[in-house]
Amino acid sequence: VNLFLGLKRAEKVLDSSENLSAAQIRRALQREALAVLEEDRNVCQRLGEWGAGLLENGSSVITHCNAGGLATGGFGTALGIIEAAFRQGKIARVYACETRPLLQGSRLTAWELKEAGIPVTVLCDSAAAWLMRTRRIDAVMVGADRVVRNGDAANKIGTYALAILARRHGIPLYVAAPLSSFDFAISSGRDIPVESRSGDEVIRGFGSDTAPPGVDVFNPAFDVTPYALVSAFVTESGVISPPYKRSFTKLRNSVHRNSSILENNG
Amino acid sequence: VNLFLGLKRAEKVLDSSENLSAAQIRRALQREALAVLEEDRNVCQRLGEWGAGLLENGSSVITHCNAGGLATGGFGTALGIIEAAFRQGKIARVYACETRPLLQGSRLTAWELKEAGIPVTVLCDSAAAWLMRTRRIDAVMVGADRVVRNGDAANKIGTYALAILARRHGIPLYVAAPLSSFDFAISSGRDIPVESRSGDEVIRGFGSDTAPPGVDVFNPAFDVTPYALVSAFVTESGVISPPYKRSFTKLRNSVHRNSSILENNG
Repeated sequence: VNLFLGLKRAEKVLDSSENLSAAQIRRALQREALAVLEEDRNVCQRLGEWGAGLLENGSSVITHCNAGGLATGGFGTALGIIEAAFRQGKIARVYACETRPLLQGSRLTAWELKEAGIPVTVLCDSAAAWLMRTRRIDAVMVGADRVVRNGDAANKIGTYALAILARRHGIPLYVAAPLSSFDFAISSGRDIPVESRSGDEVIRGFGSDTAPPGVDVFNPAFDVTPYALVSAFVTESGVISPPYKRSFTKLRNSVHRNSSILENNG
Repeated sequence: VNLFLGLKRAEKVLDSSENLSAAQIRRALQREALAVLEEDRNVCQRLGEWGAGLLENGSSVITHCNAGGLATGGFGTALGIIEAAFRQGKIARVYACETRPLLQGSRLTAWELKEAGIPVTVLCDSAAAWLMRTRRIDAVMVGADRVVRNGDAANKIGTYALAILARRHGIPLYVAAPLSSFDFAISSGRDIPVESRSGDEVIRGFGSDTAPPGVDVFNPAFDVTPYALVSAFVTESGVISPPYKRSFTKLRNSVHRNSSILENNG
């Protein structure tokens, strides 16, 4: 969603630059891009501070996929929270699910956390349940590609499983979602189209075949976590706790004015 | 467990062959090995028939890791059931979780099923929850490394997650376990030692680094599924349904006599 919002803003600049030279258009686009970057940094920072407020000192947190500085302009959304919480002494360790098939968790998230000096442990996605059962885990912290009107949240495949496992083990699941990722045009997760990606990502993902050639593959790009499994949403304007209906209606009415109506909600 | 039982039997042959020549010992060991193979084939076949009785026509089944002909003397345990059910027209499709980190599901199970002409779809372990939510899945069918006295079952890492996810979606989870894998010396899953394996299996599993060097890794070889999440155990002597306590006590008393006391339990 955010990528397309950025492209829309660039398009808008183009639309209003009919009388400008190529060089002027280039400068206008660059200004707009830098404004987007600056806003994104600001959003990540505020979101991070709000989210850090949800964690106690010495927390161990599971995260999935990459919602960090490589995916945003700032420190990231889920990782922005972890970063802010770490600076406050609240993070003992982050468990990064490797996130098959493309391994954003082990390749990107683990790298970002290591660079930031935050203790990180990588695990196979399938080991998260056993991790929850055998070690103290205080929270699951994930990002979202899109949050729709009822609070259902689309995110990288595997998030839905983590949400069920977290609930089963009494661990809160927090979804870090900048207001720009809320999509109120869609009423529930049932109406979110889920992209099916090439099976090769799964069975040829490492430069060699890992399954018999021609085998059928189920490879959805993401899944949808029902709002009932989300303990809270963290936005740049505050934390939204259940029940979501009232807060989301308020948010829906205010989001275009970029109001801070949510700040009292945490 | 089964591997060590086989080794014990070979040892017993050796122990009773003091007065034999090397050639005679070799023949005795070979006879014993062939007997183990024949018994295993027999066990798999009977187990398969019992398990097939649990499935309705046209079932879609999820399986994890490899409990097939490559791991046993016959058609396998979980796959033996699938094979028997397929011959009875009861299998529409098998979904094979790839089973990170060593990919036994995509490398072995998918290959075995394809060879047997059984429709198979491979998926990332993390996609199983979304599969359960979006397609009709009738059962999860897994093997077991060890089943202990209260019914807790150790199996490849990821099985515990699948068990939770299956329960959440109202899908039965069946554990295929030959009587030889029951270990009544251990009272509950809490006392099963879980092997931690090298982190390289996770972050160097495909001939190249998939995480920053030196990163910490959580890589348990297997996990333990609590008996309460197992809908039934399938053995070569019959199906054991909950509550397990009474059946397991009977089984414990009869297992050395290899009795068929369980056959009425299905």
